[in-house]
Amino acid sequence: MAAHRRVITGFSNPTVKALRSLREKKHRKREGKFLAEGLRLLTDARECGHVPETLVLADRRDPHPLLAALEDAVEDSGGEVIETSPVILSKITGKDNPQAVAGVFAEFDTSLGKLDRSSADIWLVAQALRDPGNLGTMLRTGDAIGAGGLILIDDCADPFSVEAVRASMGAVFTQRVALAEWGEFETWLRTGAEENRGQLVAASLRDARPYRGAPYSAPCFVMVGNESRGLPEEYEMACDLRVTMPMKGRADSLNAAVAAAVLGYEVLASMEN
Amino acid sequence: MAAHRRVITGFSNPTVKALRSLREKKHRKREGKFLAEGLRLLTDARECGHVPETLVLADRRDPHPLLAALEDAVEDSGGEVIETSPVILSKITGKDNPQAVAGVFAEFDTSLGKLDRSSADIWLVAQALRDPGNLGTMLRTGDAIGAGGLILIDDCADPFSVEAVRASMGAVFTQRVALAEWGEFETWLRTGAEENRGQLVAASLRDARPYRGAPYSAPCFVMVGNESRGLPEEYEMACDLRVTMPMKGRADSLNAAVAAAVLGYEVLASMEN
Repeated sequence: MAAHRRVITGFSNPTVKALRSLREKKHRKREGKFLAEGLRLLTDARECGHVPETLVLADRRDPHPLLAALEDAVEDSGGEVIETSPVILSKITGKDNPQAVAGVFAEFDTSLGKLDRSSADIWLVAQALRDPGNLGTMLRTGDAIGAGGLILIDDCADPFSVEAVRASMGAVFTQRVALAEWGEFETWLRTGAEENRGQLVAASLRDARPYRGAPYSAPCFVMVGNESRGLPEEYEMACDLRVTMPMKGRADSLNAAVAAAVLGYEVLASMEN
Repeated sequence: MAAHRRVITGFSNPTVKALRSLREKKHRKREGKFLAEGLRLLTDARECGHVPETLVLADRRDPHPLLAALEDAVEDSGGEVIETSPVILSKITGKDNPQAVAGVFAEFDTSLGKLDRSSADIWLVAQALRDPGNLGTMLRTGDAIGAGGLILIDDCADPFSVEAVRASMGAVFTQRVALAEWGEFETWLRTGAEENRGQLVAASLRDARPYRGAPYSAPCFVMVGNESRGLPEEYEMACDLRVTMPMKGRADSLNAAVAAAVLGYEVLASMEN
């Protein structure tokens, strides 16, 4: 396809404003696009088959083979390459010392119905998770444990925010993400052939058994709750299995992303035995 | 002791400036003090025997038994209670919607020589950890697994920053924290009676064995490295045990606080068997 290449020199250029606005959720939702920054992240994306629609580069940059590969991929797919000054690039990325590249991607389809639960033995589920860093960390952990993806229940942080994308370390491009209300999720989970119904597991203090050696079964959905309030009691009681992790100190809970990881690795180990 | 109680009404009051400045590391180090915010955190501190030198409250506040208990504890210990407007309180805490209480504490002794390694079977160690949220999360995890404390090697984020204190969810008051250069730490670790020498363990890709069922022994020091670069090879090679966690996806590492938690819980389980 034809190469689209542009040089932008002015701060007030509407493209600069449009790119910058993608740091805000309302603009991401209106445009259906999100930003990812940094050569490593964009290379991960490319290697997973995700090429940005728009690639923004600093005009004074050192040559780099991975950067050249990105430019080629964007041009091959009919996307646009924009060159601009380092100062304008930092305006777009909102960072003082930006990595010298940013990409704009179309947001992925996040409908629950599109998930094929038989494609993985483990799935992560977060309810009302508010911290984009925790959300990105859960995606990263999901990638590591071979999870199929992350299901976000009720009102969660935006998985396409710059912070979540960054904390995911590229896993936003390898993990599926779905958004759903609790009722929708519960119906979806309990529908389908008997042998393929999901097992819903949560860390809990209510009527729970030790997390080590608990009877996990695939597809296993590991659920954690909001950072401050934890899971609603109703959601915990709807779980097929409630497990408890040792709490030796004063605290009665772990960081949400940490709880998901400790539990997720235990589920993985049980399935590999 | 006598109660010290003051009302502050002006933004330019030097006490307001001094309190606010504790959000910056250089002022914390100069004063040897740090800020903790929120009724829950301050109550955790009080219940662990840590009473703030200064307690700052909003002048228009709802009565609360835990708040009253805090005020009593501060007055009993000869500290100062300051009342101010919600607007000034947000200036101090830097938050739009501050929880209506903040406390100033003297920083704890962070010298490595003060740690009694026989007081716990597990210790967490972080090298060049840059993110205060990760640091606080490690403290929180340490509390949960019954660790003795967190040892910070080389140039780490400040454990007394408002962000780290908040992410620790009070564990900064239950876990010991020590700061040391690598050489100092290594010497300290290898000194002492044979049966009490520390076992240094790190997640690694170099000559490592599976983390499940590895021969952990107390006192076990679980070490993680910098968020971007991981551990220097020299530090990894100095470990008594290098272990590897499954990485099923594209990524070759976990978030540092997540890695410490997955490994820490495994060490705990091995010691309880």
